[in-house]
Formats: sequence, C-alpha cells, structure tokens
Amino acid sequence: MNEADFIAALRTLPLHPAARALCDDTAMLGGMVVTTDTLVEGVHFLPDDPAADVAWKLVATNLSDLAAKGSMPIGVMLNYPLSDATWDRAFLQGFEAVLRTYDAALIGGDTVSLPDGAPRILTVTAFGARSSAPPRSGVLAGDRLWVTGTIGDAGAGLSIAKGAEGPAELLDRYRRPVPRLAEGARIARSAHAMMDVSDGLLIDAQTMAAASGLAVAIDLARVPLSDAYRAWSGDRMAAVTAGDDYELLFAASPTFVPLTPATLIGRFQEGAGLTLTDAGAPVTLPARLGFAHGVAD
Amino acid sequence: MNEADFIAALRTLPLHPAARALCDDTAMLGGMVVTTDTLVEGVHFLPDDPAADVAWKLVATNLSDLAAKGSMPIGVMLNYPLSDATWDRAFLQGFEAVLRTYDAALIGGDTVSLPDGAPRILTVTAFGARSSAPPRSGVLAGDRLWVTGTIGDAGAGLSIAKGAEGPAELLDRYRRPVPRLAEGARIARSAHAMMDVSDGLLIDAQTMAAASGLAVAIDLARVPLSDAYRAWSGDRMAAVTAGDDYELLFAASPTFVPLTPATLIGRFQEGAGLTLTDAGAPVTLPARLGFAHGVAD
Repeated sequence: MNEADFIAALRTLPLHPAARALCDDTAMLGGMVVTTDTLVEGVHFLPDDPAADVAWKLVATNLSDLAAKGSMPIGVMLNYPLSDATWDRAFLQGFEAVLRTYDAALIGGDTVSLPDGAPRILTVTAFGARSSAPPRSGVLAGDRLWVTGTIGDAGAGLSIAKGAEGPAELLDRYRRPVPRLAEGARIARSAHAMMDVSDGLLIDAQTMAAASGLAVAIDLARVPLSDAYRAWSGDRMAAVTAGDDYELLFAASPTFVPLTPATLIGRFQEGAGLTLTDAGAPVTLPARLGFAHGVAD
Repeated sequence: MNEADFIAALRTLPLHPAARALCDDTAMLGGMVVTTDTLVEGVHFLPDDPAADVAWKLVATNLSDLAAKGSMPIGVMLNYPLSDATWDRAFLQGFEAVLRTYDAALIGGDTVSLPDGAPRILTVTAFGARSSAPPRSGVLAGDRLWVTGTIGDAGAGLSIAKGAEGPAELLDRYRRPVPRLAEGARIARSAHAMMDVSDGLLIDAQTMAAASGLAVAIDLARVPLSDAYRAWSGDRMAAVTAGDDYELLFAASPTFVPLTPATLIGRFQEGAGLTLTDAGAPVTLPARLGFAHGVAD
C-alpha cells in the first residue's frame, strides 16, 4: 500500500480526538504536543552518513514538528537498534549534542537487536510544551504565505553527500538540520497555519492549502536562497522540490509583520490547487512537487 | 554495544525526571503513563508469523507495560514500515482488533518505506491513564512474589511456531498475548512492585529483586502451568526461562490477599541474587535465566 492508502485505512479505526483525524504531524495529548518520526537507513539517510549526524537529524526532525506548533521541547523517547560499538558511540555523541543544544531530556525508549545486515531503523517520539498550535487547516482566503530561512540547501547537501562537489555548509544543512524552535514559538502567536518544510516547499504548501480548502500561488522569484546555494547552482525549481529543509512555512493575514526573519513568497485565495509564477510570469508546475522518500542509493 | 552498556551510556545524558533513571519500562509524563516497544522481524517475531498477529502482539506488549503500572490505555502511536498490500491489510485487521479489544484509540504515528528485502521494524508508543504505579524498586524484605495466569505457554508457542507439534492454544499465547489490564489495575492498589514477564520469569524476578536491593527465592513447584503446557511438556525450567508470557509479576506484603487470580511463587529477603527450590529442595540455577532476544531463525 502507499502512504495515502494506509493512512486512509487508519482513519477508519478508533481515533483519539488528539489525533486530529491524522491530518497533522503532531497530536495534542495530556497538555503536551507529541510527535514521532522514523528514519530508515537507505531511505532517509545514507549508509555512510556519520552516526552522530544521523542522531542529530533523528531528533532535529522531531523537534522541527514541535517548532511548527510553536512548542518548546520537553524531551524525547528513543527506539534504537544496537549495532557495532563504533557506530553506537558516535550515535550517542550526536544524540547528546542535539539534546543539549535544544534543551531536551531523554524520557525513555527501547533498544533492540537487528538481524545481521539489516538496515537501521530509528524512531524518536518528542514531547513539547502546550502551545497555541495553529492547525494546518486554519488558512483564510487572502492570507499570505511566508517561509523562514532559505530553501534548497538541504537538497544540495543530499547531492553533495552522494558525491557531487559542493561546500560543507550545504552538506551540513542536509545532515544537521536546525529546528526553528524560537522562531516557531514567536510565529505561532499570529500565524493562521504552520508546518515545517520536510517533503519540499511546493508539496508542503499544497498540503496546507488543501487542508484549508484554498488555492495557493507561489512566486518562485521570492523564494529565499542562500548565498552558498546561489553559488552552487541557484536552481530555483530544484530548491522548491527538494526536501529536508526543516524551515517553517506559515500563513498569516495580509497585515502580518514578522517579528522573526521570514520571507513572503505567496498568497492563498478561494479555489484549489497550486499555481507558480516567476516574478509574475506563469510557470508550468513540475511533474514532481516534492521528495517522496523513495529509496536513496 | 550490548543493551546494558548502551543504557548505561544513556544514563549519562540529560534525563527527564519522568525517565526514572531508565530503570523502568514506563515513564510518567503529563499525568500519563508512557511506554514504547519495538518489534523486529526475525528477532521478536518470525517472518512467517501472520501480519494480524504481529499487529496484535505489537500493541499488546505495550499495553502489558501499562498493565504493570495499573494503568488503563488511552491510545497508541504507530511507526509503520509500508510493505506489500496483503501484509499491510492483514496488519490493519489485527491492529483494529487489538485496539477495539482493549479500548485504545489511535493517536498518531509515522509511515515509512523500507529498502527491498529489509526486515520489518515496527514501533508502538502507548499512553495510559495515571495510576498508583508502583516502581520496580518498591519491594520490602519479607514481601511475597506473586504471578498472574500461567507461565511457559508462550515459550511452547514459539517452539510450535518454529515447527514443533503442539496445540493452537499454546501457539496463540505466543502470537496473541493478553495484556493483564484489569488485573493490573486491581493489583496496583496493594502491590509494592510490579512488572510484566517479558524476558522470562527468573530473569524478570531477579531484575525486580536487584532494583529493590533484595534477594528473591522462587519455588519451581509453585509456578503455575496450564493444562495445555503440562500435556505438551510440563518442563518447569523451560517455562521459567522462556519469554513472552506477559503475565504480571508482583511483590506484596505477607498479609496480601489477591482480589484477582494469582499464584504465590516466592519471597524476598535481605541480601542479593536469586535462589531456586523445587518443593523445598535446592535447585541449581540454569546458565540462561531468560530470553535474551537473540536473532530468531
């Protein structure tokens, strides 16, 4: 089954109100925001990615889901497959670094053994403090679409991890994503909807618009690129269809003034679907709007 | 690294008070009991175990950890690797059955793709209502050791799943364990310590005694066996060193009178370690006290 079919089937099961009909990346439970993400070797990270970076990314992607709710971390649970001692020790270094950096504590977890040669599959469940937590479906017609930071760096970093030439700065954006926790907490107070950019800017913006029953138009020329990405390729279409940025994408009223650095890249209107322009000129949508988490190789 | 070394290393990280120093299978957080368990194909279940049974066992083992805290289920999060449609549909059937049977709701989760041929690794995180929750370390010298149900059936079931002759009743105990939720809620009110029997009666009893700084003595002749197990082999030493029983093992004062069916099998005293008798006569400890979750084959 594909993910959409499986989630549709899950929606027929007894759902907790905290599940919000499985339309969000987080649940609200016991006065907390709860989220869980699994990373698979060969799918979400490369077999030769350093173990410390895998640990960082595993926690950071979960904290990014908290950030998208404006929620600050309480702690994490870790489901870990024991491995060779060198990998395990390096993993623990990265795990400690990310916990200390974002003031998250270890709450519990489970360790397992794997059959020989099995790819590693790691899960973290993160718990965050209650927040104002705008849902994805809260966008109003006329709202503007904003994004924090720069887009496309992690996609370039993935290419570099696979062997392309490029600077360490871009590789780092792929291997050590930064959850926008402080930004999320500030933005949550006035945003109408917010999510993190994990599958790709276009597909994530389309998801937000669809959840709110609206159309969204994005101007490619406004999408913020880093100097390093401009120097590396500057390809805007590649940037908006690559995943793993972990920036915050949010909708706010036309009068919104950001209190944290963010870029206005589009607007919502009555209707459905996604339209693209480049400095006002129409652009044909690419066949693939985002990263489908196929098997990396 | 082995599990003990890895957990010792985790204890040097920032720990949440809810983690109880990682000495328990559950955490207390936000007025809830939280626990997580991962099952690995080829380790915790066999590649040809029916998918519906894997789903049942995945949820039931987590609910069993709640039961050991006297906590009734609120819901679960599921981390699921998408697979072929037949397996996925059968999994969903078992998943629905176990949720409905124990009145647990789906709260959220994550679905991932696996590289071709990778063994399935599934995680459930279960949330239960706050309870009196005796810790493992609460045993007092002189306390008696009790266990619910019968021991050894799941171990026999594993042998049957691997090809040995035997009744479906024992196979079911391996594939569809029953979390002792109602029993746990009743026992929690008066027990001094409680845990579920997952790795094997002897190793789990030793863990409880060690956590409380006490010695424990168990009389093999008192260990409750089912009629089916007696007919199948009746081997008491095999029964107390097999895993996956998911019965409740608990310590209570000498004056304790059980309000739910349970069997008195031993006692705690000053000192350390585990001693075995058989109707009073000393018995040498086996080399292996429990199931170490090695790779099943």
